[in-house]
Amino acid sequence: MNVKKGKQSIQFEKPPFIIGEASICGPKEAEGPLARYFDVLSEDPTFGKASWEEGESEMVRQAVSMAIKKAGKKKEDIRYIFAGDLLGQLIASTFGIKDMDIPTFGLYGACSTCGEGLSLAAMTVAAGYADYVVAEASSHYGSAEKQFRFPLEYGNQRPLSATWTVTGSGAFVVSNENEGRTEDICITGITTGKIVDYGVKDSFNMGACMAPAAADVIYQNLNDFGIKPTYYDRIITGDLGKVGKRILIELLSANGMDITKQHMDCGIEIFDNEEQDTHSGGSGCGCSAITLAGYIMRQLKDNVWKRVLFVPTGALLSTVSFNEGQNIPGIAHAVMIERR
Amino acid sequence: MNVKKGKQSIQFEKPPFIIGEASICGPKEAEGPLARYFDVLSEDPTFGKASWEEGESEMVRQAVSMAIKKAGKKKEDIRYIFAGDLLGQLIASTFGIKDMDIPTFGLYGACSTCGEGLSLAAMTVAAGYADYVVAEASSHYGSAEKQFRFPLEYGNQRPLSATWTVTGSGAFVVSNENEGRTEDICITGITTGKIVDYGVKDSFNMGACMAPAAADVIYQNLNDFGIKPTYYDRIITGDLGKVGKRILIELLSANGMDITKQHMDCGIEIFDNEEQDTHSGGSGCGCSAITLAGYIMRQLKDNVWKRVLFVPTGALLSTVSFNEGQNIPGIAHAVMIERR
Repeated sequence: MNVKKGKQSIQFEKPPFIIGEASICGPKEAEGPLARYFDVLSEDPTFGKASWEEGESEMVRQAVSMAIKKAGKKKEDIRYIFAGDLLGQLIASTFGIKDMDIPTFGLYGACSTCGEGLSLAAMTVAAGYADYVVAEASSHYGSAEKQFRFPLEYGNQRPLSATWTVTGSGAFVVSNENEGRTEDICITGITTGKIVDYGVKDSFNMGACMAPAAADVIYQNLNDFGIKPTYYDRIITGDLGKVGKRILIELLSANGMDITKQHMDCGIEIFDNEEQDTHSGGSGCGCSAITLAGYIMRQLKDNVWKRVLFVPTGALLSTVSFNEGQNIPGIAHAVMIERR
Repeated sequence: MNVKKGKQSIQFEKPPFIIGEASICGPKEAEGPLARYFDVLSEDPTFGKASWEEGESEMVRQAVSMAIKKAGKKKEDIRYIFAGDLLGQLIASTFGIKDMDIPTFGLYGACSTCGEGLSLAAMTVAAGYADYVVAEASSHYGSAEKQFRFPLEYGNQRPLSATWTVTGSGAFVVSNENEGRTEDICITGITTGKIVDYGVKDSFNMGACMAPAAADVIYQNLNDFGIKPTYYDRIITGDLGKVGKRILIELLSANGMDITKQHMDCGIEIFDNEEQDTHSGGSGCGCSAITLAGYIMRQLKDNVWKRVLFVPTGALLSTVSFNEGQNIPGIAHAVMIERR
């Protein structure tokens, strides 16, 4: 029996395993400090396709196929796929997975989508609805800038609080059995985020929009499970960047929780933000997805870390809501990933 | 123990109940043949707000609040909400539910979203992860036209195969117990759809894009459960319209299944398509959502029907994918709703 913990969390009695994962990235990520952890580093930002959007779909296709292959499975073994991206109407996901013939749940949680997908995949597997489920998330610098900001050709200046959308897709096969694999990497629990609106309106400061949601879900996770930050080797947010990180630490500190020793942010790690001119850090669904699939899973497999709280963070806006003067609320989903 | 049926279906051993539902609609729907079944009929298409998008969010807020109230619950009782709409980055859902303080899973399945949300809500409740879960979906004629087609002021001509986006939001409270209610309306099983691409490119003929996906999931449902179309009083698609309906019947007939007697399409029923100039029929996430919350639930409660297969249908495109010459794949999710 799986256990409901507090208001927002679930503890899995028989935790599902991550048995295969893949990370595909673009040329800028290939020059960053985590490059050696990624499976495929493309020199071509369109991945051989005619547009950024088609290139993003190609990344999705490669990530899902490779994760299934690395799990030693075939696509026929996969009962469901949970997938999402940043583009309107999820076109990157749709055209990436449309020919795979796998029942599909489309998700949108902005840059928190990897956490949303892993949560639902783990719930689905732990309930016995499926033996194998794929969770996947992607983003692409070119397609995201085109949609959310300015034409790249315009060359607008970016403030230091701005982040840089990661070109990447991360995919994971979640399974009810580990089938004799050497490393037991499990999803032991989840804490599902609420939408949190602190009234921030600056779309060039996403970190500030998302930090309150991250603080909320981390606080809730620790409370629901009755644990302290030291339970985890790392508490890893998705793409708060340097500005958002500071706010997160302050918000939790004001609630008596000190996560300075455990906290890491994928957006800060994925680029050398001074050298690579990415300012506050990397962002996008792909940022946390490939950092988990590449770097974090490696640390768990190598026994460097035993327990991490993975907390992808999303800023909920569109150009329409922004232009109509709406705030930018945030959301974050926490996934407990542990080596057994 | 819940039972996996075939490749794509789940049968719930202890089927979750729909214990509260609400339907909010706009002025055109209020003049249609199903008007008397809806809870709130607004004369104001912006629902007292400054824009179509904010109006859609207001519908979402009203539908979710009313469904919870009709279930005799408070928002604190709701453990999760599954919600989605047609707008880029789900802004209608986000701003509709952001102040409700409920853990949120954002979904995108185009106009199939109501089926996707009910499926995940039923899975979540049947697995014991939650006692009460809300599923909600919305669309709005003004916000959808602005996003997908032409400015309304342009007054472009619409071909007869085109559909009319329904202004409406439908919400449902799914529960593990019926708590002594008179009518037992259950979700007994689900069949999750795959993305189906028949190579159609005409965005003014969504019915043709979606009919193959509907045929696929209906065929799979009947096969997985080993039942015939006569098992159901109605097999109800979301928004195929007249053109899509013809294709659906033909595709299933070619596979030896005759659903002519059982088939109904929410898009055909919701408007008087000749009188109201809505051409092929109504469409949008709201079309199937309010038809289920209003009309279909009434027929089940009044014992007119005992078993329906509810099959919302979605066309997977954006203006970007369309302009880049991509096909318009379809997806459909089947939900078995039965009176016990």
